[in-house]
Amino acid sequence: MLQELPTLAQLIKTLQQVPYLASKNLYRVATYFLRMDAAKAEQFCHAIQEVKEKLRQCETCFCWREKEKPCLFCSSSKRDQTLVCVVESWHELLVIEKTQGYGGVYHVLGGVISPLEGINSDDLTIEPLIQRVADKNIKEIILATNQTPEGEATAAFIARKLKDSKVIVSCLARGLPVGSSLEAMDRLTVYKALSERRPF
Amino acid sequence: MLQELPTLAQLIKTLQQVPYLASKNLYRVATYFLRMDAAKAEQFCHAIQEVKEKLRQCETCFCWREKEKPCLFCSSSKRDQTLVCVVESWHELLVIEKTQGYGGVYHVLGGVISPLEGINSDDLTIEPLIQRVADKNIKEIILATNQTPEGEATAAFIARKLKDSKVIVSCLARGLPVGSSLEAMDRLTVYKALSERRPF
Repeated sequence: MLQELPTLAQLIKTLQQVPYLASKNLYRVATYFLRMDAAKAEQFCHAIQEVKEKLRQCETCFCWREKEKPCLFCSSSKRDQTLVCVVESWHELLVIEKTQGYGGVYHVLGGVISPLEGINSDDLTIEPLIQRVADKNIKEIILATNQTPEGEATAAFIARKLKDSKVIVSCLARGLPVGSSLEAMDRLTVYKALSERRPF
Repeated sequence: MLQELPTLAQLIKTLQQVPYLASKNLYRVATYFLRMDAAKAEQFCHAIQEVKEKLRQCETCFCWREKEKPCLFCSSSKRDQTLVCVVESWHELLVIEKTQGYGGVYHVLGGVISPLEGINSDDLTIEPLIQRVADKNIKEIILATNQTPEGEATAAFIARKLKDSKVIVSCLARGLPVGSSLEAMDRLTVYKALSERRPF
């Protein structure tokens, strides 16, 4: 039936390209757009196109910034410009910002090394990071990639690249989440919490 | 941080309104749009706006049709216009079409009665269905709503409304899915399969 309704077929095809729309929800999302009134559709498209128009990536840390403004982090005098937290994407950056406990700046990698998905180190902002460490007065790099095999491999790759520089390379503490009970945790987390124990 | 990046905040807010985007995926979908090049963004928006421009709902069966063409189903001389299958949405219509075993026409309800979500019978196309049965020469109505409490309640509501008309009201068979083993099925399905058993 869809091939006889080309406009609808085109919408489905377009939505199919959006990641994380499982195929079951695809039709529900399509229905959302089908029922949306024209004014709201325009608003939606405006929001998407504004992003192209007005947002740029910071040339230093690769976080998003408004085109006519400097980067929130790199231009801030209140932040410690010698402390750089390396994150996979701006989503993780937001998570760290939410802790309100970090006063340094960031470096957004734009993903992780994943040969299976065809992403290698050149696709990420690792080279600019190495350059940033070499050029600027940076004292410490915190590797805050996710605790996944790819995240840890990427962190290891960066640490190896920075081995010969004088910068301190650290990473996030591993262990039990706050409020967790030992019983509910997986074996590996408990093992890590035990082997990386700290003085009370 | 988001309040200082209004364009990005607006994108997030717009995407939040799309149903079935869980909050964890929200940032991943946002990243998809952030990284999309301008030409592709325009293409995306074009597909959404074309839908407003070119698709209409059929006034009889409420399925989608291209504006300048008649309804695929209601205008077809190959289809039995006296047999009407009532479905919740065009998504279920596609599912039935895929069986290639149905030669009648459809009636799309546009949802199910769900007082908890504030959807009552007036929000659906039940009244036009009753009118259609009264006005046209319709012999049988197949109630093909989903096997959910709301779906069955909606079917019961329609059946009650049609009680005094001469139309035959039927519904989909309930029982064991093809290829299923009894052991893997839930108790209620087995019970229904048993109590609604048919001659071999």
